[in-house]
Amino acid sequence: MELAEPITRLIEELKRLPGVGQKSAQRIAFHILHVPREQAERLGQALVDVKDRIRLCKDCNNLADEETCRICSDSGRNQKLLCVVEEPHNILVIEKTRQFNGLYHVLHGCLSPLRGIGPEQLKLKNLMERLHRSNIEEIIVATNPTAEGEATALYLARLLKPLGVRVTRIGMGIPVGSDLEFVDEVTMCKSMEGRKEI
Amino acid sequence: MELAEPITRLIEELKRLPGVGQKSAQRIAFHILHVPREQAERLGQALVDVKDRIRLCKDCNNLADEETCRICSDSGRNQKLLCVVEEPHNILVIEKTRQFNGLYHVLHGCLSPLRGIGPEQLKLKNLMERLHRSNIEEIIVATNPTAEGEATALYLARLLKPLGVRVTRIGMGIPVGSDLEFVDEVTMCKSMEGRKEI
Repeated sequence: MELAEPITRLIEELKRLPGVGQKSAQRIAFHILHVPREQAERLGQALVDVKDRIRLCKDCNNLADEETCRICSDSGRNQKLLCVVEEPHNILVIEKTRQFNGLYHVLHGCLSPLRGIGPEQLKLKNLMERLHRSNIEEIIVATNPTAEGEATALYLARLLKPLGVRVTRIGMGIPVGSDLEFVDEVTMCKSMEGRKEI
Repeated sequence: MELAEPITRLIEELKRLPGVGQKSAQRIAFHILHVPREQAERLGQALVDVKDRIRLCKDCNNLADEETCRICSDSGRNQKLLCVVEEPHNILVIEKTRQFNGLYHVLHGCLSPLRGIGPEQLKLKNLMERLHRSNIEEIIVATNPTAEGEATALYLARLLKPLGVRVTRIGMGIPVGSDLEFVDEVTMCKSMEGRKEI
């Protein structure tokens, strides 16, 4: 290798990131050579800080830098509505709609017998605790629209309904802005089932 | 923002990198949460090391972690042949052809009257010194095939020919208007073979 060792090493480390190949890694490494040292240092520190300072919210398992996450700490949110998601980043796409003002619960996975993930591997304990101590009226299950996400949704419905809480599933159908021509049969089927009066 | 501060900050810092937008930054940040702390630390350290340990080779201005770069220190290379490039990363694409076994000289720029870059702004001093003290017979000018790169090539030809050295230009197999960084090895190879007297 004809490059100086520190650059080669930076390129190798960058290539471990998702979506970063040889060319992008090279481009980023040469870019770093031209930025102020403080900027490189800030990025380096941010990487380590995320590992050191991020923990899971004790109430909902969302990522947090305090004992409870920003959403659980926000008393302005609807405490009677809870949305269950598989992963913390799923919260972002729901928040972006600005339509949901309730709380979240992050399972950190979904049921998958093939990968040996059963209910014990999901973060359900603090969900049950929250249900017992608070006034939740409805749980919206927003797991992924995959076989595993559906199985998880059904499991949750069976687990939670006996507690007297309403359990709903996010609507499946045709994505807005798409074309009927490209919609698969299963989605089309769900879309017909979920039809509404105009 | 509903994300914990350390993640938001990491996403912001990642977005400053070339080719990294909001989505890629988010993806990388969530990926970092799942890697071992050591890996995040290694990347962080590599970023700062590049800033602290990289300097310019005293002979050719290539990036180096010692006083002279790996290519200049390599006595197995042809000491009579010198290839002039604009930027250190241009060396990579030429080395990849495995056809060139001479030395390099990095100008760190090209002549650009519009941007106020004249010969004084280019690293020419140690090129002249090297020519005087060593036995260089041919200088291949591999500046970019742009108007500015061509002007630089002509300037070098006029400057160096009176010293009794052969000055050649890489062949125009390279699409005019592009950048050396994006040239494939075969084209680069043809371009080296097809070099012409200026």
